[in-house]
Amino acid sequence: MDRLVESTRELLWERGYVGTSPRAIQQRAGAGQGSMYHHFSGKPELALAAITRTAAELRAEAERQFAAPGTAVERITAYLRRERDVLRGCPIGRLTQDPDVMADPALRRPVEETFTWLRTRLAAVLTEGRDRGELDAALDPSATASTIVAVLQGGYVLARAQNSPAAFTEAVDGALGLLSTASRTPRSG
Amino acid sequence: MDRLVESTRELLWERGYVGTSPRAIQQRAGAGQGSMYHHFSGKPELALAAITRTAAELRAEAERQFAAPGTAVERITAYLRRERDVLRGCPIGRLTQDPDVMADPALRRPVEETFTWLRTRLAAVLTEGRDRGELDAALDPSATASTIVAVLQGGYVLARAQNSPAAFTEAVDGALGLLSTASRTPRSG
Repeated sequence: MDRLVESTRELLWERGYVGTSPRAIQQRAGAGQGSMYHHFSGKPELALAAITRTAAELRAEAERQFAAPGTAVERITAYLRRERDVLRGCPIGRLTQDPDVMADPALRRPVEETFTWLRTRLAAVLTEGRDRGELDAALDPSATASTIVAVLQGGYVLARAQNSPAAFTEAVDGALGLLSTASRTPRSG
Repeated sequence: MDRLVESTRELLWERGYVGTSPRAIQQRAGAGQGSMYHHFSGKPELALAAITRTAAELRAEAERQFAAPGTAVERITAYLRRERDVLRGCPIGRLTQDPDVMADPALRRPVEETFTWLRTRLAAVLTEGRDRGELDAALDPSATASTIVAVLQGGYVLARAQNSPAAFTEAVDGALGLLSTASRTPRSG
């Protein structure tokens, strides 16, 4: 059952939803048709299991940085700067470009929930930072959180366009630069 | 010739490169095979003409906001807030998800050049704002420009994930909020 889900994840990544056939999933998993249909009603259920697992991994990885000690900006910096396979892209964000996934509310749901979770979690980190006096009181945690998630997703787009991870890095650097101008530093009057 | 390029643009948008056949282009343009091959050597050349035209339109539209009167932040606000068909997405950014376009250096070039132009142009607007004392002297115009372009591209991704333009608007609002904290306002010392 685990191999079926893993094979579906790989195929969704490589070929998209429309290019992933139940037969290809069985072949890659080395599973028979009977075994597959014993566990899953069909391709939509397998795809849902695959996307749900990818989403859970993404959250767990992000939570490691969000829950770490440090100021809000330090934790967000660790999150934005952590090692990524930039040219490969975001396994969840990429699904927004798969028309078959977006057209099925059940498959779109984990994608939507992942981004909602990310924005909510980042907003909580920013609110903490603001309440501790690390960040400007005028900063809107919720909108800023959306901006940070967008910078990551857009950074992947720019990196693909330039065929280089440098464009991603520059977008992240700019976001951290802006965030640092919103950090309350002692000012001489 | 113009109808052939327009038909290629529409088909690239609707079906992607691999789904756009020379035959479909001819049919949509109401052109014969002879006419098509009189003007274009084949699908790659038609696609290049289509992408180049889309890129030129995108630049012309953006330049309208960048070249307008006003402060740097005012012009960037007008650019980010101008009316967009958000759920449709960016016609250039979307090409980065088309593996056939990205695999062909000739087709990737106008995509890369468009983003390079956008970043360079935004960096010039930000540099102007910094030099006029509107923006914090510590602001890095080049990195900030990348961030702004990434916010737009990532905003489209978030909007598709939520199936709502609101996510795009929130990401833009957050970026403008950060930019306003980097604006030099009179401070009481």
